[in-house]
Order: sequence, then C-alpha cells, then structure tokens
Amino acid sequence: MPFPYETVRLDPQRRALVILDQTRLPNEAVTLVLSEIEEIRDAIYRLAVRGAPAIGVAAGFGVYLAALRIDTDSYDRFLEAFRQAKAYLNAARPTAVNLSWALERMERVVLQSRGQSVDAIKERLKCEALAIQEEDVRMCRGIGEHGLALLHDGDGILTHCNAGRLATAGCGTALAPLYLAHERGLRLRVFADETRPLLQGARLTAFELTAAGLDTTLICDNMASQVMKNGWVNAVFVGCDRVAANGDACNKIGTSGLAVLAHHYGIPFYVLGPTSTLDLSLQSGRDIPIEQRPSREVTELWYAKRMAPEGVKVYNPAFDVTDHTLISGIVTERGIARAPYADSLRVLAAAGANPQA
Amino acid sequence: MPFPYETVRLDPQRRALVILDQTRLPNEAVTLVLSEIEEIRDAIYRLAVRGAPAIGVAAGFGVYLAALRIDTDSYDRFLEAFRQAKAYLNAARPTAVNLSWALERMERVVLQSRGQSVDAIKERLKCEALAIQEEDVRMCRGIGEHGLALLHDGDGILTHCNAGRLATAGCGTALAPLYLAHERGLRLRVFADETRPLLQGARLTAFELTAAGLDTTLICDNMASQVMKNGWVNAVFVGCDRVAANGDACNKIGTSGLAVLAHHYGIPFYVLGPTSTLDLSLQSGRDIPIEQRPSREVTELWYAKRMAPEGVKVYNPAFDVTDHTLISGIVTERGIARAPYADSLRVLAAAGANPQA
Repeated sequence: MPFPYETVRLDPQRRALVILDQTRLPNEAVTLVLSEIEEIRDAIYRLAVRGAPAIGVAAGFGVYLAALRIDTDSYDRFLEAFRQAKAYLNAARPTAVNLSWALERMERVVLQSRGQSVDAIKERLKCEALAIQEEDVRMCRGIGEHGLALLHDGDGILTHCNAGRLATAGCGTALAPLYLAHERGLRLRVFADETRPLLQGARLTAFELTAAGLDTTLICDNMASQVMKNGWVNAVFVGCDRVAANGDACNKIGTSGLAVLAHHYGIPFYVLGPTSTLDLSLQSGRDIPIEQRPSREVTELWYAKRMAPEGVKVYNPAFDVTDHTLISGIVTERGIARAPYADSLRVLAAAGANPQA
Repeated sequence: MPFPYETVRLDPQRRALVILDQTRLPNEAVTLVLSEIEEIRDAIYRLAVRGAPAIGVAAGFGVYLAALRIDTDSYDRFLEAFRQAKAYLNAARPTAVNLSWALERMERVVLQSRGQSVDAIKERLKCEALAIQEEDVRMCRGIGEHGLALLHDGDGILTHCNAGRLATAGCGTALAPLYLAHERGLRLRVFADETRPLLQGARLTAFELTAAGLDTTLICDNMASQVMKNGWVNAVFVGCDRVAANGDACNKIGTSGLAVLAHHYGIPFYVLGPTSTLDLSLQSGRDIPIEQRPSREVTELWYAKRMAPEGVKVYNPAFDVTDHTLISGIVTERGIARAPYADSLRVLAAAGANPQA
C-alpha cells in the first residue's frame, strides 16, 4: 500500500516548503505550506517536521528558500545573508547532526560558486537541496536492503520513537527493512514504544506501520522489559541522530535504556541511519550536545490536561547516548558496521568520499 | 508538614468507606463516600483507591460494610452472603495479594465466630478491619525505619509508580524511609518516574513528595537510564504487589526494566513492602497472575485526546515481575531480607506467626 502522505517536499511554484504537520497526527493529516524562514525554523523546533534525515532535507529546502529572498547582485552580500539564514536554521535543534550537515552542504555550493551570478547560485542551491532529498530516498532504500539481511520470517522487532517514512524523505531508516520485509512476504510482529514525552511511537510509528498493514503492537516505554522477557523480541531496530567515531549512538531519549535491556535479555540491538548521521569529528557520545526541552512536554502531555503538580521540577532531555558496547551493529545505506566501530565507521565514511572504493 | 489528605478510612456513622479519589489528582482533591459494595469494587478497579496496602485496607472496610447489610440471624446464611461479597471484591484486581490477604483475614473472623450472634460477628469484623488499618500505619513506620538505614545525606533516589501515603493508610512503603529521612534533616534528591499509562508517579508521587517539601524531579519512564548514567541515582526504591518465595517481586509495570538498568549501572535496587505482600505459596514470579488493563489507558492517555491510531493493537499489562537476582534487598516492617531470599523471606514470614520469635 503506497503511503498517501509526503513528509517533506519543495513546492517550486509557491516557493514554499510543504510538510505534513506531525504534531497533529494521528488525529488529523494537515499539510503546512511554509515560505518564511521563521515558520520553517519553528516547524523544526515544534517537531512539525522531525526525524534526523527529514530535518536535513527540510533545512536544505529552508535555506534555499531563504536564499531566494536575498535581494542583491553582490556575491559578498549574498554570502553574508546566506550565512545568517544558515545560522538561524542551524540553531533550531542542536542534537541531530543532519541539520548542520545539510546546511554545510548548501554553504559549500555557495562557496564553490564565487564568480557566478547570484541568480545562478540560487539555481545551484535548488539543485543541491533537491539532491539531498533524492539521496535521502536512495539512502532509505539502501538501509532497507542491508537491514533486511538481519530479519527472518516470524521475527518480533521492537522499535522506539519514529524512524520511518515520517522521519525521512523516503521509506525510513529503522523501519525501512521492515517495509521491505513486509513487501517480500515476511511476517513480522512489530512492537512500537509510545516514546514519551511527545509520543512519536504512538502517534507516528503506529500510524505509518498500521497504514502499511504491518502487525503493530503499541506499548508504553516501560513495558519493553516485559515484552523482551516474554520472548517476543528477536531484535531491536532504532534510528539515530548522531553517531560518534567510537560508535556511541545518540537517539531519542529512552534508546540507551532499551540497549541495556536488550543486552540483559540477549537480544541484538541495531542502530540504523544514513552515513550523514556519522560525526567522526567526535570521539565519543560524551561530546554530543543533548537538547533539553520544555517541562510542559512532560507535565501536560500531548495537548491534554495538566497531569503533574505545579512547581515540580522536570528533567526533559530529548535524546540519550547508547554506549557502543551495547550496539550489535550500525546499519547504513553503505552496509553494516560492526565492532570495533572506530575502524568500521571510518571505512564506511570514507566509502562516500571515493565512490569507486 | 502533615499530609492534609486521608487515603482510606471508615466513617462508622455514615457506614461508608471514605477515600480520596486518586483518579482526579493532582488537579482536584475529591473525597468519595462509598457505601455500596458495587461502588467500592469499582473504586478499586478504577484505581480511585490503589496501592497494594491501601487496597487491603479498603477491602477490609468494604467487606465489613457489605456484612452490615446482610439481614439475617442465621450464621449459615450470613456466612454464605459474606463469602459472596468477599468473592465479588476479591475479583476487582488480581495481582496485589493484599486484597485477598485482607479478605481472608476478615473471613477467618467469621469462621472463628461460629456460635456467636450475627450482630456480634459484625462488631468483630469492624474491629478486624480497623486493626488492618492500624497495622498498616505501624507497618509503614517499620519499613521507614528499616529503609532509613539504606539512605545517606545527599543521596539521589529513583522511585517508580506510587508507594507512598497515597498507597497505604500510613506514610507509605517505598517512600516511608524518604519521609523519615527528610524529617531527620537528610537532604535527598528524589526522581519520580511518571509511570505510564496511568501516571501514578507524575500525578501521585510528585504530588505527595512536593507537598511534603522533598526535592522531587519528575521524569518520563524512558529517562531513567540517562538519569542513572548521569550518576544522579544512589539507590532505587520501589514498592511491590506480591513477592514470591524466591524473592521475585511483582510491582507496577516498568519495575523489572528499572532493575535491569540499576544492575547495569551498579546501583542498588530495593523492594519495600509489608510482609502481607509476601506470597510464599508461590515458588517464583512466573506463578503471579498479571492483570491486563484496557487498551484505552495507553491510546487515550489520562482523559486526554486520543493519541494513537484506531485499530492499533495494544499490550497493557499493569505489572511485571522483577527477578530476585536483580534485587539488592526486600525491606519489610520486620527487617531487610537479602539473598538467598528463599531462606530470608521464610524467616521474616515466620516472625509474624510467632511474635515471640
């Protein structure tokens, strides 16, 4: 069944970023047409568009749309205004490296185009942003194919947060192999953690997997231990927002706890993501900045009544880091990295620099 | 600061069970006055009164109030009607052994009173129900004193669900040592898991601890791993609904996952509860019946909008079992049991049978 929604795309006629507003799912499918850079940044911050790869795609389109509005013929003035827009978007969310990765890529186009007319540069930026989107679609398929090798008919798979169609421009990262397996007739049983506080698992993963006809069971995050103990889980598949050189993987808060549980119960734990999520400039997960989000996400749930007392302190990190020793493999579009990650990730990252390798 | 609410009490004049409706906390403090057995059973099922010890106290009062309404002078007819009421209340929730423990205790009074007038038996039932309540208050204090030995100034303590004043007739089980420590000037930092799906941690534990002036930080269940990794937790204190002879402890869903995490991070994990929670007739946790609750608790949150798609399957166990190998100690009002639990729990249980021991 084709997925009837588009997570993130460019509307060139309207000079707008078009996204499905994920804060309204699963109750309403509302499309947002955003042309102002402030709206685009806000959509990223509010998680109307979210998921590391989709954030990268949205940022590429966003900075292109901002560039279109820079009204000058001077390269230097254009570059300065472009960099302001880039810094503004880059500050929307600190953890997922794909945001800055996409913006750096866009800036490189500008820097490599010195001497060309501003109009020509704007055209090149459009092509680059579309290339990021197209590569994302291919990358998802690549991860799907590599991850498929880890699946068997009848497997139970546990996933956390949303690393699917709604997190990418394509068929997802952690969920891509599940879609491929389903297409090829493998029967899987998927367990989706609801993923507090913003419930991406309940609202998004359960939504897209059930829409595609996969056998999906929603659980609260704290039920994962029991589901594993019941013998229902053959592997854990999660996405990632940034992976350090030693393999420490940063992903939605709660992921590291799942990895400890999987280790305890002897269940393989796989991290799936594009090589654009690798940040080999960081030695370990300790160096990854963790976004802290507002308390009301915890105390007021998802536009519900307040359900914690006034004045209580709240700790609300959006992400955590899973130690590489707890990860069975890191699945990218170029293949699966295994321990020791310091070596295997370097090889995967280098494979991109030299496509002939 | 005295706690201004009463969790569960008898109003002899009105012939009613009076409870604080915990489904309305923390936004409203509503008192329910219940005299019909159907209302009382419903209050237990809806978790208007909850927590293993408080359920035991409520059941004692409930079956006494039901007995008051049995209009007969015949002992045999009285016994038959009493047993019907007992079975009806006993089916309200299957996991916490304190419910059946209290009801068995009440039935023993009836059986030992054969030959007395029905009116006299009713009076003895009232005394027994009040005794269960009074013992619960003393039991909480005993657990508090024993648990206090496990605490140090400056400690960070993580707790799950609610095992406090709102779960007992007294000052709680897992929270009792924290209250005592606070009274005696120890500075503690408490982390309260919100405890999905019904949010007893967010709504009840955060409510009663902040009301008492303890430094309390609310986290989502899936944040516990990160809080432990940060080095903020010196011990985990949880309550229990039933403990098997080998030390396997059944408690609110999510507890077993916390125990695995604590083990991984080298943090002691303590289970605190009255000896009435021991069920030495069961060899291990595998024999404990686990209550399955309605899906809508997961899909619709706490009287909020629906936030998962229609048709998704839900797994919603109310409890899980923590393997005894993951438990550092089981703290009861009679002392702390340590491994091997098969021996230490038998000694604690026997200490009650023979108060001179």
